[in-house]
Amino acid sequence: MSLVGKRIAILVEQDFEDSELAEPLQVMRDAGAEVVLVGSGSQETYQGKKGTISVRPDATADGVRAADFDALIIPGGHAPEKMRLHAPMVDLARDAYRQGKVVAAICHGPQLLISADVLRGHTLTCVRSIAVDVRNAGGNYVDEPVVRDRNLITSRTPADLPAFDNAIIDALGGAKEALR
Amino acid sequence: MSLVGKRIAILVEQDFEDSELAEPLQVMRDAGAEVVLVGSGSQETYQGKKGTISVRPDATADGVRAADFDALIIPGGHAPEKMRLHAPMVDLARDAYRQGKVVAAICHGPQLLISADVLRGHTLTCVRSIAVDVRNAGGNYVDEPVVRDRNLITSRTPADLPAFDNAIIDALGGAKEALR
Repeated sequence: MSLVGKRIAILVEQDFEDSELAEPLQVMRDAGAEVVLVGSGSQETYQGKKGTISVRPDATADGVRAADFDALIIPGGHAPEKMRLHAPMVDLARDAYRQGKVVAAICHGPQLLISADVLRGHTLTCVRSIAVDVRNAGGNYVDEPVVRDRNLITSRTPADLPAFDNAIIDALGGAKEALR
Repeated sequence: MSLVGKRIAILVEQDFEDSELAEPLQVMRDAGAEVVLVGSGSQETYQGKKGTISVRPDATADGVRAADFDALIIPGGHAPEKMRLHAPMVDLARDAYRQGKVVAAICHGPQLLISADVLRGHTLTCVRSIAVDVRNAGGNYVDEPVVRDRNLITSRTPADLPAFDNAIIDALGGAKEALR
């Protein structure tokens, strides 16, 4: 499961779901990926909504390009609704999607993808309370732990994190690496 | 500005925006209306997201009918996303709308109206971070302190509360009363 040589951006804003940032960050680094925390630029540091973590991003959305990464991870919590208000965050998500990068969103993460208008015709999942918004954005909502549809990977809640992380690693070729 | 004889339901769920419940509650009672706090039934008491208020609802959504009220008020905060998960709350909002009752929503309140699928063709406002969801639900989003479109009244944030309250009183005939 080696992700050596892969660059992954994890998007950050205030009140992210703590475990949905911390766990993928740890798992992707453990797998050998270079992980870059990309903030919206609204603050210097961001706290998780449960108050267990505070992070200082490595970069801001207007200072990076989708082309610099192999994958984009969008944690949930109240953060995605705040990310939506920053055009560079929306543009980064849209560009990553259009360039065929792996775009992974969990819980409320798909809210940013609604704003990027990239869900049309996709099958995906999310936290149940925004399922109607996902459907109205043209997405086909299903209630499953993890859904991979082309370059889009989605999950529902922190309980789905192991499946979510594995799907990202698999999509980046990490699993195939082990089979060589 | 008398609302004597008018019955108003204010919907309640956990993490409502404190002032968006407390202020209309006080203003409508001061104007003479009978105000009924209607909870989703998920809890016995509900706290505001800022922790300044705790309320115990007078009724639950499955125990009341839209026909019992002249108006429905939906405060914002994180509460509307939780209200959406309870069919009796969604049904109550839809019934009130269809029966021509005054339906007033502020901030994130329109999220419940998206779930009730009553925004199609309406001009309305909301907190900016859900504007895209309102548009995707068929609503015509505008950025104004208060918007009244037929029986729908909407506002953006706590700063709009005075205009929001006045529009509700006006729609219920309270202002006309004073002119008699």
